[in-house]
Amino acid sequence: MAVGLGPLSTLHPVPGFELGIASAGIKRPGRKDVVVMRCAEGSSVAGVFTLNAFCAAPVTLAKQRFLGEVRYLLTNTGNANAGTGEAGLAAAAQTCAKLAELAGVAETSVLPYSTGVIGEPLPVAKIEAALPAALADLAEDRWAEAAAGIMTTDTLPKGASRQFVHDGVTVTVTGISKGAGMIKPNMATMLGYIATDAKVAQGVLQDLLRDAANKSFNRITIDGDTSTNDCCMLIATGRAALPEVTQASGALFAALKQAVLEVSMELAQAIVRDGEGATKFVTVQVNGGATHQECLDVGYAVAHSPLIKTALFASDPNWGRILAAVGRAGVANLDVSKIDVFLGDVCIASRGGRAASYTEEQGAAVMAQAEIGIRIELGRGTCSETIWTTDLSHEYVKINAEYRT
Amino acid sequence: MAVGLGPLSTLHPVPGFELGIASAGIKRPGRKDVVVMRCAEGSSVAGVFTLNAFCAAPVTLAKQRFLGEVRYLLTNTGNANAGTGEAGLAAAAQTCAKLAELAGVAETSVLPYSTGVIGEPLPVAKIEAALPAALADLAEDRWAEAAAGIMTTDTLPKGASRQFVHDGVTVTVTGISKGAGMIKPNMATMLGYIATDAKVAQGVLQDLLRDAANKSFNRITIDGDTSTNDCCMLIATGRAALPEVTQASGALFAALKQAVLEVSMELAQAIVRDGEGATKFVTVQVNGGATHQECLDVGYAVAHSPLIKTALFASDPNWGRILAAVGRAGVANLDVSKIDVFLGDVCIASRGGRAASYTEEQGAAVMAQAEIGIRIELGRGTCSETIWTTDLSHEYVKINAEYRT
Repeated sequence: MAVGLGPLSTLHPVPGFELGIASAGIKRPGRKDVVVMRCAEGSSVAGVFTLNAFCAAPVTLAKQRFLGEVRYLLTNTGNANAGTGEAGLAAAAQTCAKLAELAGVAETSVLPYSTGVIGEPLPVAKIEAALPAALADLAEDRWAEAAAGIMTTDTLPKGASRQFVHDGVTVTVTGISKGAGMIKPNMATMLGYIATDAKVAQGVLQDLLRDAANKSFNRITIDGDTSTNDCCMLIATGRAALPEVTQASGALFAALKQAVLEVSMELAQAIVRDGEGATKFVTVQVNGGATHQECLDVGYAVAHSPLIKTALFASDPNWGRILAAVGRAGVANLDVSKIDVFLGDVCIASRGGRAASYTEEQGAAVMAQAEIGIRIELGRGTCSETIWTTDLSHEYVKINAEYRT
Repeated sequence: MAVGLGPLSTLHPVPGFELGIASAGIKRPGRKDVVVMRCAEGSSVAGVFTLNAFCAAPVTLAKQRFLGEVRYLLTNTGNANAGTGEAGLAAAAQTCAKLAELAGVAETSVLPYSTGVIGEPLPVAKIEAALPAALADLAEDRWAEAAAGIMTTDTLPKGASRQFVHDGVTVTVTGISKGAGMIKPNMATMLGYIATDAKVAQGVLQDLLRDAANKSFNRITIDGDTSTNDCCMLIATGRAALPEVTQASGALFAALKQAVLEVSMELAQAIVRDGEGATKFVTVQVNGGATHQECLDVGYAVAHSPLIKTALFASDPNWGRILAAVGRAGVANLDVSKIDVFLGDVCIASRGGRAASYTEEQGAAVMAQAEIGIRIELGRGTCSETIWTTDLSHEYVKINAEYRT
């Protein structure tokens, strides 16, 4: 059902960043379900993590450790190690300790990531048994295999890569993500891993990732539910022969920022395109807001409205439902007479009512497409926000109603 | 599909409040689609209205007029007169003026209410032509007919009635509502009309209605969408031989408040029970909050989660989805180790994880029922809130996807 998502494009290796895949047989024998990533010594690491108060054991540990020295990222699918309390924390720490022992690094330099069923004990022994094979598999050209290795309910692997040249030196930014399962916290979680060979001070790297995430991973929504395990990591190995980026300015910083943003947006949008039950890829753009927050409030009111999402599924250009969602978004002193709504390039509502020029045929033509843009002009200021989402289909209900029964 | 909703119970007439029904043929010939209500001279009237910024023309007019003298309420189905701009306001005013002329009262003492399709011009001539028949039909014992007359997509009429005796005088509180269509802003709208023969000062009546609505109409949600036309009115005719209630205290006030609350809750819950596609009636109770707002935030996060709603449809006791929703509700400094979650009387999650005593069989037994309680104990304070909602079924998607196509 993935909307406009093809096979993986070329994922350029990132010098100083290796990936290895193995099978622990967590959900079924033979499935590649353990991915180990090795960061070159001296790498700096940034991370953004779920805001869910019930964050899973691996998230707690990764948050504690990512500001120290980071040498390995250990990811398993099939079990989220969430809702598992103190025992879950101990289990996550134990798998990290085992990897540290095998690799000869400090225990705290290994960060854990888990995605899968909530509330079941992490199968520590199975994961530990798979670690030697994963370590033996480590290589810089294993991005595609790793993209497949972190999949759960995803129907396609997700990756993106950019390169740019600065002072004659090629810099690479490559990333992978998973997360059709974002709509299934049970099976769970959006994960993203992006690496670059640029050398970047941790504080700058963290700001760079946060900004990129706020325009990508934090702007996608399928059903408004947030997983207990969501994480996105950005690793800078520093192997490119360029000076360290220590400030958020200059040509190298600007080029890197753009590349990280493009990779993040492609990875995030791929998750929406692969949303379970999705038949449409929908871009909700809100312009003319007095604040960014009110743009987001309006955007999410539209993106989360089951009435709009079912209308999108039915290819029904239902301008009344869109206006009603804008109206209930809680924007203070909203002057509806200034609001215009566009479906693609077609103005469907103007000054608070149906646009005089609008015909149902125009709207139906836009709605018949697999990729649909909804643009809302608030006429209150200069702020804009963009959110990506899907429709709400029979398939969504079927998948989520039947997942455990 | 209505869950636990039977035929109308006895709706006691309210002295001084008459109802008349007629057919204007707005959507189809012969359908009873116009309801006129007459309030005795000297009645006081309270109202609560949609907070949607795109409020419909009749709502704008009713809000302007309800604090003055009110003699007639004029309701039509089949057309919401919403998204219709200045022309819509003029059309609403015109139907009111016609009724005022026929009845010999001031134009501003007539309040309009509309529910139905958004964005189509109100068929003023058809409504005007039906007014003489509606006026001729006015009687105090026409509550059941009026309950049917305001229905749109409702499968059953909704009414509730209470009586109590104060100082030997019987006081009646009777009301009707409609609103399966709350989940369909197109077809639209929750409407509620409650009348009592007690004599109540307007300020006291308004507070009384607002309090009751905040425990009933404002605590029900099917899909989080709010109509452009929602209204609830409370009329006090003053025909009971008792002193006027001028303060929010005393035995008469307390008895009246309780009766209005019970009628409001029954009417509001009936709307949820008749929610389109509903197969479950779900009570979400949040206790132990530090503030009422955080209880509501948690309650709505649970009640609006498509993942929980599909699990309810599938009778799947999915405690992980409930914990994840609580965790993402945005409660500051939420200590998950203090949270317990109950399904009916069964503790399914305790201290942030699966309860040690819990078995899937216990949860499945609760989920198999048509009426399900989810109780969340936050362990932070003494505030509580209760919200009523439904599950999310195949039928919901079908109805809303196919409504206009």
